Amino acid sequence: MAGNSFGEIFRITTFGESHGAALGVVIDGCPAGLKIDTAFIQSELDRRRPGQSSIVTQRKESDIVEILSGIFEGVSQGTPIALLIRNEDQHSKDYEHIKSMYRPSHADFTYDVKYGARDYRGGGRSSARETVARVAAAAIAKQLLMHYGITLTAYVSKVGTLKLEKSYMDLDLTKTEENIVRCPDPEMAEKMIELIKEYRKNGDTIGGCVSAVIKGVPAGLGEPVFDKLHADLGKAMLSINACKGFEYGSGFAGTELAGSLHNDTFYKEDQVVKTKTNHSGGIQGGISNGMDIYFNVAFKPVATLMQEQSSVDENGEEVVIQGKGRHDPCVLPRAVPIVEAMAALTMADHLLRNRNSIL
Amino acid sequence: MAGNSFGEIFRITTFGESHGAALGVVIDGCPAGLKIDTAFIQSELDRRRPGQSSIVTQRKESDIVEILSGIFEGVSQGTPIALLIRNEDQHSKDYEHIKSMYRPSHADFTYDVKYGARDYRGGGRSSARETVARVAAAAIAKQLLMHYGITLTAYVSKVGTLKLEKSYMDLDLTKTEENIVRCPDPEMAEKMIELIKEYRKNGDTIGGCVSAVIKGVPAGLGEPVFDKLHADLGKAMLSINACKGFEYGSGFAGTELAGSLHNDTFYKEDQVVKTKTNHSGGIQGGISNGMDIYFNVAFKPVATLMQEQSSVDENGEEVVIQGKGRHDPCVLPRAVPIVEAMAALTMADHLLRNRNSIL
Amino acid sequence: MAGNSFGEIFRITTFGESHGAALGVVIDGCPAGLKIDTAFIQSELDRRRPGQSSIVTQRKESDIVEILSGIFEGVSQGTPIALLIRNEDQHSKDYEHIKSMYRPSHADFTYDVKYGARDYRGGGRSSARETVARVAAAAIAKQLLMHYGITLTAYVSKVGTLKLEKSYMDLDLTKTEENIVRCPDPEMAEKMIELIKEYRKNGDTIGGCVSAVIKGVPAGLGEPVFDKLHADLGKAMLSINACKGFEYGSGFAGTELAGSLHNDTFYKEDQVVKTKTNHSGGIQGGISNGMDIYFNVAFKPVATLMQEQSSVDENGEEVVIQGKGRHDPCVLPRAVPIVEAMAALTMADHLLRNRNSIL
Amino acid sequence: MAGNSFGEIFRITTFGESHGAALGVVIDGCPAGLKIDTAFIQSELDRRRPGQSSIVTQRKESDIVEILSGIFEGVSQGTPIALLIRNEDQHSKDYEHIKSMYRPSHADFTYDVKYGARDYRGGGRSSARETVARVAAAAIAKQLLMHYGITLTAYVSKVGTLKLEKSYMDLDLTKTEENIVRCPDPEMAEKMIELIKEYRKNGDTIGGCVSAVIKGVPAGLGEPVFDKLHADLGKAMLSINACKGFEYGSGFAGTELAGSLHNDTFYKEDQVVKTKTNHSGGIQGGISNGMDIYFNVAFKPVATLMQEQSSVDENGEEVVIQGKGRHDPCVLPRAVPIVEAMAALTMADHLLRNRNSIL
Repeated sequence: MAGNSFGEIFRITTFGESHGAALGVVIDGCPAGLKIDTAFIQSELDRRRPGQSSIVTQRKESDIVEILSGIFEGVSQGTPIALLIRNEDQHSKDYEHIKSMYRPSHADFTYDVKYGARDYRGGGRSSARETVARVAAAAIAKQLLMHYGITLTAYVSKVGTLKLEKSYMDLDLTKTEENIVRCPDPEMAEKMIELIKEYRKNGDTIGGCVSAVIKGVPAGLGEPVFDKLHADLGKAMLSINACKGFEYGSGFAGTELAGSLHNDTFYKEDQVVKTKTNHSGGIQGGISNGMDIYFNVAFKPVATLMQEQSSVDENGEEVVIQGKGRHDPCVLPRAVPIVEAMAALTMADHLLRNRNSIL
Repeated sequence: MAGNSFGEIFRITTFGESHGAALGVVIDGCPAGLKIDTAFIQSELDRRRPGQSSIVTQRKESDIVEILSGIFEGVSQGTPIALLIRNEDQHSKDYEHIKSMYRPSHADFTYDVKYGARDYRGGGRSSARETVARVAAAAIAKQLLMHYGITLTAYVSKVGTLKLEKSYMDLDLTKTEENIVRCPDPEMAEKMIELIKEYRKNGDTIGGCVSAVIKGVPAGLGEPVFDKLHADLGKAMLSINACKGFEYGSGFAGTELAGSLHNDTFYKEDQVVKTKTNHSGGIQGGISNGMDIYFNVAFKPVATLMQEQSSVDENGEEVVIQGKGRHDPCVLPRAVPIVEAMAALTMADHLLRNRNSIL
Repeated sequence: MAGNSFGEIFRITTFGESHGAALGVVIDGCPAGLKIDTAFIQSELDRRRPGQSSIVTQRKESDIVEILSGIFEGVSQGTPIALLIRNEDQHSKDYEHIKSMYRPSHADFTYDVKYGARDYRGGGRSSARETVARVAAAAIAKQLLMHYGITLTAYVSKVGTLKLEKSYMDLDLTKTEENIVRCPDPEMAEKMIELIKEYRKNGDTIGGCVSAVIKGVPAGLGEPVFDKLHADLGKAMLSINACKGFEYGSGFAGTELAGSLHNDTFYKEDQVVKTKTNHSGGIQGGISNGMDIYFNVAFKPVATLMQEQSSVDENGEEVVIQGKGRHDPCVLPRAVPIVEAMAALTMADHLLRNRNSIL
Repeated sequence: MAGNSFGEIFRITTFGESHGAALGVVIDGCPAGLKIDTAFIQSELDRRRPGQSSIVTQRKESDIVEILSGIFEGVSQGTPIALLIRNEDQHSKDYEHIKSMYRPSHADFTYDVKYGARDYRGGGRSSARETVARVAAAAIAKQLLMHYGITLTAYVSKVGTLKLEKSYMDLDLTKTEENIVRCPDPEMAEKMIELIKEYRKNGDTIGGCVSAVIKGVPAGLGEPVFDKLHADLGKAMLSINACKGFEYGSGFAGTELAGSLHNDTFYKEDQVVKTKTNHSGGIQGGISNGMDIYFNVAFKPVATLMQEQSSVDENGEEVVIQGKGRHDPCVLPRAVPIVEAMAALTMADHLLRNRNSIL
């Protein structure tokens, strides 16, 4: 009800504030009997961790995960799995000077109205630091999906106006992690990195897109009507900080195609029904059809600038704000593991939800 | 769990198949004491009804709503409100010839895989006819919202490549219902109608976009983290048949702006904190900030064509399909009241969810 | 949230008021592929129907069920099953005289406080007539359970101080439906009937107990911690009008046994682990162990008397109330199919919830 | 879905195993602005803690609570409150000898069937140690209730056949904590303590009842139909380890009263509608009527005996089990704070759920 849980069967609840004692997550509904590689959980957190390169925030967090429950002798028990990540590098003083100010395009004002108060230290619960808990939980979800042959990959496909026009099928996605911007096209990656550095130099920020593809999904996942597979994926992505849009399959561009070009023709090959094109993005009527699922997520430029901005404070008085502390000039590279995380959580949940026939 | 319910407090559950006995909805959680204008429910259904103009399906349904419970002496009782719409114009025979075939880009194949069977008559539960129940329920939600001063409007902003470049602020939205394509710009409307007729003439179909704006929303609605207001709006829109994408505020275009241009500067006017620009689309940190909420929804071209298409049947044999019956060449005009409906249901739910402080 | 739904996967939502247009239920989550015997639904409604004998209310309702959706060619589709029962014999005038009065031990006062108004006609939504929808839904649940070999039976075990001391194992439960009080012991049944008639003659009412047994339950159903199988059965029973208590297995009497006598010793027979005694009532740690599940439900005397009673009206003025209309002198006989219904709904839900291991 | 959460708005999720790293709870939905007395949380945990007296288990746990999130400067933030209690006194070796055995009337067998494995150390998740998380969460719930003037108290009313016949109204409940058995009648307390010591001496155990009363509840809490206030209280109690039954108001005894004696007559005093008797237990039609809520909970004798018992192991081989370690001869004294905890959680949730009218 208060919005800190996600999923129906594979259900996570996250907790913790940016500058509080710890972040954490409880996973309720992970089936028993799953072998858990705890080193993988840590390596996923490391992918998301701040301070990895020159184009992301320099906040230093080791983000060591502690498993509190639910795993015994390396195997899930069917009981809740609780994961804890303690905060370390808390520069709460970086926020003292804006304690009573409303930072533009942040959640300061809306939290104040909603709750009558707010934890001003680094955005508290509204900080993207909360996503560390999602990534930890998703590292379990990914292992569940791998058990069933489902894999997923995300990458940066756009920074500002620099757009990767190639489809995921024409890219070598194993190259994504080879550069700091996480774009699988090395040439484009170089340009993107330059662009981000330029914005950072000006104390400014820039947005972009992350694209993702999910492979090995059996036909039949997703619930018709309200909990369509793409509707739940869309909600998952839109719940990520700074997300402004979601499209899957042919997306917004597909609105311009004639139906005769857009329709995906069925054929049968090796005993499997497939489609010749895949404008449907692997989902028809809200249910997976066995083809690749792919989608695209828009992120706005980071709201914290290293420039002066005018605003108001809690009393409505005009103030001038200048960002202090350690911030990302571009959220995109660090958004990649988070997009994967939310996709994994959504897919794990729908995998377990899919038991629709008595046969 | 099976995906036929929407909302947490103002919660609807829809039922019914395209060619079954009836469609219906149960609304659980509508507060007591709300005066209900039943004529308004009917007028909303009339806006959605097929057969209204030459550019939509000619299926003839009177769509008369019957109120089964929850309203006594014109006032909601706090008990479940059940609304029933019987099916009348059931040309089930139009579907006999494709009983065992998989129509391209429809849900025939995925339903078969998921449930081991399907109601082949007009798509059964996967038909857009299901949305009649949503529109009926939303007519109650709209009255609840109006009680609190919240209003919402949708309109067609794009058909194929014909795109209305103006912002909603530069349009006279009272003109939307004056033409059959539901575009508030009369000149553009004319062009869109011509384009749709052209596609229809060729037995083809075309997609487009619906835009919407919600006014009078108090600051504070929406739950942070997973149930962000725009995440729930996005899911609501993506749950509509044929929807391929969702963006709010600056959306996908906003990814190209510098943070210094994108940030919405706060100021105070008439004792109210406002923002000078509204790239945030009225939502910051997932919570409404009191400014207008606006968003954009992409719809693919209708999958049923009045052309021959190749496909396979249940046994994987190649077949040729030709659409019979009465279908929309373009879903957009009839999508307008459905977009409004899903927006109203989402907002009514978040309005009732917003009680976050003991003060 | 508003309490009109029950179950997580096999989930029902009921609607309708005692003297409104209709009662009904939507079942969401019934698996596809289940053959549905619609005559059985009707026969279950007939068992619950008023006017069957001289010791129950003489309200005349034919309680004909209409299937609105979810079943096609006699088989469940995996889509919502909506069932409708129209009200017929509405003597709303019987209630005009108490329109503004608070009947003792009814819900008149509490509904007024909660909702600011109430449907005074026959209790509206608080009437036991609502249970017709539960019985209809449970007739589907029972068929699902039968498919998996699970059966359940309830019977009257106590009326006033007349208590059937025998265990269900020493009774011939096939005899339950042979008498109008639904007690499987013919001699005791005779006494109970006499007692009820005596109370009715005095314009008074009397309470009692219904006992129930569930057989064929596989080990493993029920979720530990909060959703223990007996906790959900208990809630199900306590949700029935007039219910005052629930006990399972050894129940309240078990509190007086030493642990050494109460513990159920395990042994193995025919490759199955069983227990020699069954004080556990078939449930250990909240999870079924494969033995019979049995429990006992207490019902208070019916609150509507054919006597004068003093009370107050909406303005707090003292009034005298005398019951009019057609009421049960004892709720027990008609409670039997309702206890079965709620048990069936609980078991069907937990049957579908039980997928806890990846193995 | 997996049953580790309780409540709809004030919703808790507990995690942790008896002999794992820690127990904990996340509270989602506690309103912002509540002053939290953290010392009170600790004092509640101390009331539940093992090792307090000679008649309870001698396991030594300091049960120090750590607040991980959701409270800033002593006030709830509207964000999830996570509480952590680390395990200390883990005598896991006490369980090595029964690793593959099924203890009678424990959850060993049912967990094995359900999950394909189990954490044999002290019952893992099925241990009553899990209730430490409930008591911690309820210490917050109690503070929320106190803010609204609602208080609750529980006490031991029965041990074996020793039954306190007096009503709660004839007892001085402030005396409950003055003796180690937590019975407010000093004479009866003495007898109960003797009885428990006798059972302990024999290596045996005994059951009993806890009674509870809730005062200051405003009329209007509880949802009609399935989520009746007493149905949710009943489920809450039945979810406590070893609970076998629940009754409220007149309970099972009320089944023997005539309706004319059982009905609670309304009258008005000091502008408040009250009832002369309170057989309804403060709840009518599932909704509180402003009178005291009282109920009674049955607990079976503890299953772990310090005697030899025969059983089977995982392979179905006959074995002899003898309890080792530190166990309660009678669960009742320690059940008192747990009954209060579950009552507080239920009431806090229904307090927040009760917004049923737009007026």
